[in-house]
Amino acid sequence: MADKKMVEQITPMDVDFAQWYTDVVKKAELADYSGVKGCMIIRPYGYAIWENIQRELDARFKKTGHENVYMPMFIPESLLQKEKDHVAGFAPECAIVTIGGQNKLTERLIVRPTSETVFCEHFKNVIQSYRDLPKLYNQWVNVVRWEKTTRPFLRTSEFLWQEGHTMHETEEEARKETLQMLEVYKEFYLNCLAIPAVVGKKTDKEKFAGAVETYTIEPMMQNGVALQGGTSHYFGDGFAKAFDITFTGRDNKIYYPHQTSWGVSTRMIGAIIMTHGDDSGLILPPAIAPIQVVIIPVAQHKEGVLEKANELADRLRAKGIRVKLDDSDQSAGWKYSQYEMKGVPVRLEVGPRDIENNSCVLVSRVSREKNFVALDALEAEVEKMLAFVHDELVERANKNLAQKTNTAASYEEFLDVAENKPGFIKAMWCGDSACEEKLKEATGGVKSRCIPFEEEHISDTCACCGKPAKHMVIWGRQY
Amino acid sequence: MADKKMVEQITPMDVDFAQWYTDVVKKAELADYSGVKGCMIIRPYGYAIWENIQRELDARFKKTGHENVYMPMFIPESLLQKEKDHVAGFAPECAIVTIGGQNKLTERLIVRPTSETVFCEHFKNVIQSYRDLPKLYNQWVNVVRWEKTTRPFLRTSEFLWQEGHTMHETEEEARKETLQMLEVYKEFYLNCLAIPAVVGKKTDKEKFAGAVETYTIEPMMQNGVALQGGTSHYFGDGFAKAFDITFTGRDNKIYYPHQTSWGVSTRMIGAIIMTHGDDSGLILPPAIAPIQVVIIPVAQHKEGVLEKANELADRLRAKGIRVKLDDSDQSAGWKYSQYEMKGVPVRLEVGPRDIENNSCVLVSRVSREKNFVALDALEAEVEKMLAFVHDELVERANKNLAQKTNTAASYEEFLDVAENKPGFIKAMWCGDSACEEKLKEATGGVKSRCIPFEEEHISDTCACCGKPAKHMVIWGRQY
Repeated sequence: MADKKMVEQITPMDVDFAQWYTDVVKKAELADYSGVKGCMIIRPYGYAIWENIQRELDARFKKTGHENVYMPMFIPESLLQKEKDHVAGFAPECAIVTIGGQNKLTERLIVRPTSETVFCEHFKNVIQSYRDLPKLYNQWVNVVRWEKTTRPFLRTSEFLWQEGHTMHETEEEARKETLQMLEVYKEFYLNCLAIPAVVGKKTDKEKFAGAVETYTIEPMMQNGVALQGGTSHYFGDGFAKAFDITFTGRDNKIYYPHQTSWGVSTRMIGAIIMTHGDDSGLILPPAIAPIQVVIIPVAQHKEGVLEKANELADRLRAKGIRVKLDDSDQSAGWKYSQYEMKGVPVRLEVGPRDIENNSCVLVSRVSREKNFVALDALEAEVEKMLAFVHDELVERANKNLAQKTNTAASYEEFLDVAENKPGFIKAMWCGDSACEEKLKEATGGVKSRCIPFEEEHISDTCACCGKPAKHMVIWGRQY
Repeated sequence: MADKKMVEQITPMDVDFAQWYTDVVKKAELADYSGVKGCMIIRPYGYAIWENIQRELDARFKKTGHENVYMPMFIPESLLQKEKDHVAGFAPECAIVTIGGQNKLTERLIVRPTSETVFCEHFKNVIQSYRDLPKLYNQWVNVVRWEKTTRPFLRTSEFLWQEGHTMHETEEEARKETLQMLEVYKEFYLNCLAIPAVVGKKTDKEKFAGAVETYTIEPMMQNGVALQGGTSHYFGDGFAKAFDITFTGRDNKIYYPHQTSWGVSTRMIGAIIMTHGDDSGLILPPAIAPIQVVIIPVAQHKEGVLEKANELADRLRAKGIRVKLDDSDQSAGWKYSQYEMKGVPVRLEVGPRDIENNSCVLVSRVSREKNFVALDALEAEVEKMLAFVHDELVERANKNLAQKTNTAASYEEFLDVAENKPGFIKAMWCGDSACEEKLKEATGGVKSRCIPFEEEHISDTCACCGKPAKHMVIWGRQY
């Protein structure tokens, strides 16, 4: 029967990683293309991952004292132009509304690519005294950056994200906030997405438009390519000056406040896919999996099987575990493939013989071994297996990161590694943007990812120009 | 000291209801104006109300089997034009993107005013067989409708809402869904917003562009003006035909699916303000109040007061109650006014004498009477008072609705009531749009709100033309 055909195969990773990615996005029903070039439809299963991500992150933002707000999506062109580095960075990729209510607008409206400027306009109204500080705001919204080459989740003209925007009394406090939120991202990536990642500071060349410092989290995908996973910026008082935001300090003098912003996006779903997936499809970290356990009844027409399956589902749900019981008339084999494709961490099989033995079968998405488990110990065993899947995913990602991180002490070595070994390159740098540019040109796209918080000593001199080195930089190709 | 000045007064409702509304929005820090005409900033306190609304409604949507998705915000102009009634309804109020990435677009993009068309484009891809039905989708997004006259929450060019979009195998199932979601709105309005409301069917003249039937929930504000509180539409297969969406039925024949959509928006915050507020500011229904109980320590510098206040806060939080302890150095009087302005349902005062007596003072926002409560019974007493505030708000709103609903049996009586008595008018109607138009013109804006599910017999003939009546209609002015 047509409905019972086996789940279609996907392209193996080794054959074509890019095609494998596209296949997984489509077959796992995460996203679909829309009629507008570069804009994606996030389907229920993909959106449920995003909802779990939002819930986890939002709790962390609130715990650190942040409040959610909503700022207008339209930015008057003159507002965007107030901070000159900022507008230079974003103007080339703006979508612009020129008509409203059938009339040509007197001032063109930019669809927000990011919201520093509208936040600043509001901050000017609500900050007068040191008593009004800090302002710790965040919003969950859609943003638009007109992209030439797009891929679902990784780079789309419209995407969903959160953007934190904060204002502080002192530079020290603002810098602390910037690093605190990077740490929140790092902890979230590790504990919820099972993705270990390098964190550090962007070079001046790679900084956010208008920022004094940009910090970044840089996970590595299984193919060795980096994904900029999230950024946290310290702005100093540059925007405050451009927008004339001042406050009366404790000493009754007038000061400019110090600003930060930080954001992560639906791109994280791309990171999950490419960090954990395999040739059978997606593998989801349990913390954000929409379905943590799928229950598949075996010989479900036999008396007592569906009742038992439902009973087990209820028991697990009572523990707060997200369970799906699939009692559709598809074959068991089709179901196994389907939920492997969808990356469900744990599969529970229960049939007449299991019921007789007061047991069931648990299969983890990472080991795929059958584990016979006594029903009396079900909750504990499932929780153990979910924890195992998380740990195993972290271990695999750590291994990939270690295996695909190489060092280069000289220019020749750098070019050799860049050409022959996918992944990150640790190499020294003199601090000059010209060397970054030269390495990028020579390698066809290897860029500085960051100056990591934990630098090592690879050599004494810049891997590009041979002058004395100032920093160790992590380099890599990127999505 | 400047920071300790009393909370500023707001315009009394009786003096100027519109100004009272604007004052409350501003002084309760719900929203602010932005640099783009008609676009508002939703501030933390206003957004926290929206988050509570979202949480409550989203749980109801999921319980009834709906899944969240995200569709692109941009709609190619040709897509919007596929259903002719629909485009005629929305074209006049569209914001249009004509430039992307510094180039003039070959096809103009409409910023979604609603998303039937993009959902249909997707439905066409994902619906093939009756097995793919129903599709029960919802999204929480921003939409844009270019408005000439705007007011925060009530009518803004950009607003936040949810839009449900569903596809069904049969007309019967789709009609059932349409009514089910209206019922969800009605129950939510009553149990979460403490707003009783008339529900019914829109006349053809007032239907949504492209719908076969539009159902509506119509709460009445304290000044007797109606607010269209939410709508639920049955589309038949009109869009399905326009978009060529078909499925193979159980009998192997090809059919068009039947469609619904339904939505409520941030406008509900306007309904809360105008249904419950008073001359001291906002009054929030406990179910969606960001702060349900504010604790104000009296003589907080005295030993043990803050410790006790914190202990009580923790006890209430353990019960899932949303508590704020205000230990700032503002005066107690300032705090009382401030949290009355913000509509916090219950105030708890605790000072040295209370602690001695093992008691505290509870004051509800609706009665403002002091209740001395034994600390041993605190949780139960607070829960009782929160329930009391909810019930009292419902009773007041019901009373307002009853008092401001009048009947009119003739044209003269209709004009007289419309001129002299604010509120709803129950009057018979022949079914002709011309009579609706005539009554609207003659009264300067009284429109049919709906044909309520529970019709009464007011007279035998249409209050406008005198021909035999088909229905009783509820009429009223609207926001």
